[in-house]
Amino acid sequence: MICPRVQASFSRQSLMETFGARLIRAQDGVCEIVAPILPGARQQQGAGHAGLTFALGDVAGGYAALSTMPDDVEVMTVEMKINLLSPAVGDNLRAYGEVVRAGRRLTIVRAEVFALRDGQERSIALLQGTMIPVSK
Amino acid sequence: MICPRVQASFSRQSLMETFGARLIRAQDGVCEIVAPILPGARQQQGAGHAGLTFALGDVAGGYAALSTMPDDVEVMTVEMKINLLSPAVGDNLRAYGEVVRAGRRLTIVRAEVFALRDGQERSIALLQGTMIPVSK
Amino acid sequence: MICPRVQASFSRQSLMETFGARLIRAQDGVCEIVAPILPGARQQQGAGHAGLTFALGDVAGGYAALSTMPDDVEVMTVEMKINLLSPAVGDNLRAYGEVVRAGRRLTIVRAEVFALRDGQERSIALLQGTMIPVSK
Amino acid sequence: MICPRVQASFSRQSLMETFGARLIRAQDGVCEIVAPILPGARQQQGAGHAGLTFALGDVAGGYAALSTMPDDVEVMTVEMKINLLSPAVGDNLRAYGEVVRAGRRLTIVRAEVFALRDGQERSIALLQGTMIPVSK
Repeated sequence: MICPRVQASFSRQSLMETFGARLIRAQDGVCEIVAPILPGARQQQGAGHAGLTFALGDVAGGYAALSTMPDDVEVMTVEMKINLLSPAVGDNLRAYGEVVRAGRRLTIVRAEVFALRDGQERSIALLQGTMIPVSK
Repeated sequence: MICPRVQASFSRQSLMETFGARLIRAQDGVCEIVAPILPGARQQQGAGHAGLTFALGDVAGGYAALSTMPDDVEVMTVEMKINLLSPAVGDNLRAYGEVVRAGRRLTIVRAEVFALRDGQERSIALLQGTMIPVSK
Repeated sequence: MICPRVQASFSRQSLMETFGARLIRAQDGVCEIVAPILPGARQQQGAGHAGLTFALGDVAGGYAALSTMPDDVEVMTVEMKINLLSPAVGDNLRAYGEVVRAGRRLTIVRAEVFALRDGQERSIALLQGTMIPVSK
Repeated sequence: MICPRVQASFSRQSLMETFGARLIRAQDGVCEIVAPILPGARQQQGAGHAGLTFALGDVAGGYAALSTMPDDVEVMTVEMKINLLSPAVGDNLRAYGEVVRAGRRLTIVRAEVFALRDGQERSIALLQGTMIPVSK
């Protein structure tokens, strides 16, 4: 299921369109995004760029948070930490974000990014960060 | 001054080309990058995406590190933490990265990203992370 | 089960003794530690200090890593990020650490710290960081 | 100069007393703390424990933030990231914290911790994190 307001917000993120990313799931504190590793999103050795991996994980965490917030707000990232476990080698990336603690003022999230290659998934990055509601 | 091997590595990063980013300086543990906030690199409210800000800061930190490493290696990000201070509103972004500690096994870097608007610069993000040399 | 070399290393950490901490489990990439919230380990409002919470989570992550490393090394923290979810209010803290990725050069770990109060556990902190083997 | 309310809050932190820490300066978004590396605050190889280094850096950042906040609030750490640059070897540690951005809802801080040995200072840790005002 995809919460309509998360879909509406996601669709306004032009970077997600540039990356060919699609929202797969966003509801009840969980969000999933998939994207190809496009030719224009690579690092110097041909793998997906850390900026791509970060963006997908950050957006998955942010929309996991937004799915638990009141209707009249948007969400912004306060801070995010990423540990890169493996190069982003493969055909597609999948980012899974989830709310760890939804507080009154701040929401703590985690995300994990996976690379899909020849039908196999490999975890390539872990993210942990803080989201804040902002006025639309 | 731009260290030639950093320029060569930067030029192979297709994401930097997608973002219209240019390497301005890379030498002796310091690196500077500038990029426009392109229409295809926005978040849902029209500001530059956190993924853009992260990518520029991460690359500035990474190439600051590479500029201090032996010639036969490339650099990869182990982990990076970003605090977002303000939305990326403006015409261009500038990322400044520097080496804090160049160790035998790991190099610690910091980076700061600025938004330029109407001739004024505003700090929008601080990054702190760890780089590792890898075989070319 | 407690891996004997982890117990030996833990026993040499005088800060763990100062905190009254005990090693409960350390094997195969997992480590658990418990400690009281002593009168001398408080912050300004009487809760357990963030330094206590950090220390327990960091040590749990570090010894989870050490339990997967060769016998002739010790472990050190490269970097650690902590998100504090709730004040450390209660009688005891429990830290659970686990290895996320054991690499040749670096080991990525996560840890969670819980406060125990009136027989109930509450998650108070999440940590994510990087460990490195060092010569004994 | 030491802002009196920061001194009052610091004096209520029993962990700072356990560590023998003293507040040296706390005013206008800057804070400095010094502490010995006591026998009871060591890691397994005899250096100061990462928990000690973290606690001093975190408190320096927190009180740098508090010195810029209204009188009727206390400060808490939302999240903190530490990069450990060198072992805490020496006689004393000095932590220097400063406000990077004092926002309405959140305050971003940085801190650096130094080890003093034979009259020489060496930077051993960098911290970057987020502070939040809370009701007293």
